[in-house]
Amino acid sequence: MLRAVDVIQHKRDGHELSREEIAFFIDGYTRGAIPDYQASALTMATFFKGMTRAETVALTEAMMNSGQVLDLSELAGPKADKHSTGGVGDKTSLVLAPLVAACGVYVPMISGRGLGHTGGTLDKLEAIPGFRVGLSLPEFRDVLRRSHLGLIGQTPEIAPADRKLYALRDVTASVESLALISASIMSKKMAEGIDALILDVKTGDGAFMQAYDDSLALAETMVAIGRGMGKKVSALITDMDQPLGRACGNALETIECIEILRGAGPDDTRELSIELGAWMLHLSGSPHGLPAARARIREALASGAGLEKFREVIALQGGDPLILKLLQLLIGLGDAVEVFQNFR
Amino acid sequence: MLRAVDVIQHKRDGHELSREEIAFFIDGYTRGAIPDYQASALTMATFFKGMTRAETVALTEAMMNSGQVLDLSELAGPKADKHSTGGVGDKTSLVLAPLVAACGVYVPMISGRGLGHTGGTLDKLEAIPGFRVGLSLPEFRDVLRRSHLGLIGQTPEIAPADRKLYALRDVTASVESLALISASIMSKKMAEGIDALILDVKTGDGAFMQAYDDSLALAETMVAIGRGMGKKVSALITDMDQPLGRACGNALETIECIEILRGAGPDDTRELSIELGAWMLHLSGSPHGLPAARARIREALASGAGLEKFREVIALQGGDPLILKLLQLLIGLGDAVEVFQNFR
Repeated sequence: MLRAVDVIQHKRDGHELSREEIAFFIDGYTRGAIPDYQASALTMATFFKGMTRAETVALTEAMMNSGQVLDLSELAGPKADKHSTGGVGDKTSLVLAPLVAACGVYVPMISGRGLGHTGGTLDKLEAIPGFRVGLSLPEFRDVLRRSHLGLIGQTPEIAPADRKLYALRDVTASVESLALISASIMSKKMAEGIDALILDVKTGDGAFMQAYDDSLALAETMVAIGRGMGKKVSALITDMDQPLGRACGNALETIECIEILRGAGPDDTRELSIELGAWMLHLSGSPHGLPAARARIREALASGAGLEKFREVIALQGGDPLILKLLQLLIGLGDAVEVFQNFR
Repeated sequence: MLRAVDVIQHKRDGHELSREEIAFFIDGYTRGAIPDYQASALTMATFFKGMTRAETVALTEAMMNSGQVLDLSELAGPKADKHSTGGVGDKTSLVLAPLVAACGVYVPMISGRGLGHTGGTLDKLEAIPGFRVGLSLPEFRDVLRRSHLGLIGQTPEIAPADRKLYALRDVTASVESLALISASIMSKKMAEGIDALILDVKTGDGAFMQAYDDSLALAETMVAIGRGMGKKVSALITDMDQPLGRACGNALETIECIEILRGAGPDDTRELSIELGAWMLHLSGSPHGLPAARARIREALASGAGLEKFREVIALQGGDPLILKLLQLLIGLGDAVEVFQNFR
């Protein structure tokens, strides 16, 4: 019979844990049968000993299976998402998600809050007056079916083991483990029911991984996990030596995204959003390769289809569509801020 | 302000913890202000990173100070004890403690139970019909004053932090840490109010430390802790490739000790008991060095003073003195077993 203390000792002594050991531990921990003090010993041992690719995949799967895994097979067509490891001014999600959805790929985006010094997509969404980030999973599915796009926050049903384990790692100094970071991110993304995922791994002064080699290792690990689970996954390692775009702050960043979708806005945010969006199309099977995918995204931007998609999802998720109409009438950023402030 | 998570991270990252950090953590853990899951993360980090001598001394002192520290200064004369890391058939305590006490050194012996495959002095004492190992600390002090000898088990008042931490390490695979093992042993011994301590560190197939180098490292660490706390401490590294003496089992081992105190019994147990007892006298300031101390112990054995001291402490701690009288009348081991069984 498996015992938690033996699993800890195996890891401590540098052995590779079996799928059964990992599933036993994560399941027991999620149910409360294995206490926090054994989980923190295991995460600290993992900090020192690392995990093999096979272990990391098994951990990701165990955490994913601790909760609901969305089955979106009723939606005909590819489903894709993007994950960024986070940076300052990183706001590409709100640009690329409408663009990709406008190209016919489903984007079931479940986002997190800001972490440390970095912002979170969820926080930016909440800057949109009335926007409901807390849809139930059935509501989320319905919005997705109607608009190809849904934007919500983490729910308790998705990967509860990760939620519990992350909170524990945070107070036991075992956050900075490549295997644990990778499995944490991927367990939530793989629960979204997607076929394809593009990873934006930041590197530089404003990123969590400041050294290029660390960013590369994180990217490789996450790609290996995703592919090990049968998904189309690639990663771009992108610069975070300076903030992305011009705006920092949730309302200001949301406005910057709308500016880009209107055909304006800063080049760096726009180009990175286009590149990541193109990869999402490409990984989703868009014909004629990446250059053609880039062209499709640019067309969705130029035609205003992306902005219209964003307006559509805001309306479906309870936001006031008046805000978009007003923004289309406005020309300057200062005035846009004023409109936002009047709504809040 | 100190935070538990920062202390864990310092240790994880290989920094030397300050006395303040260690005292803060152990005090908080003892009071329940620092939870088990942070303590297990720290012990696992310590397993990997070890502790410097200064840290190990600070940990020992913090654990010692988590409970009562006996003050035996009212008893004029030296106080000494022995600790063994445990082996099979290791029963020297019941021989040497009466011999050393008969030579005029106070022996306030607080013993533990068997651990793993090894026996414990406490278990053997309980094989003596009526013997009370659970004296209160005032009763213990009184017995000591009257007979120079007291033999009790661990009490909740002594080093409660160690009790709590050891139970945690046991279920989180962080037992096998040189620093933690050493501090655990020494925190309890240093709380006994002794001036001198001889350590019997076992090595070989039947010991916890099977490799000589590991035994040596443990001995050196414990000696350094004790000396760092201003006590006279030495260690003998002794063979545990085969059981000590002829008897294994609590009642049988107690009988073997009485046989030795009667002047018979197996050579190996007798000679090791004499050597350890002689070191206790020597460290306690017995004049003319170790050879003279050996001679004093041999004299206490030959004269029957040791057996008489054992009889005395058994009487003082509630045991039936009839058992000793009967044993003195008996000649064979088989009959002695029968007498014991009748009493139980």
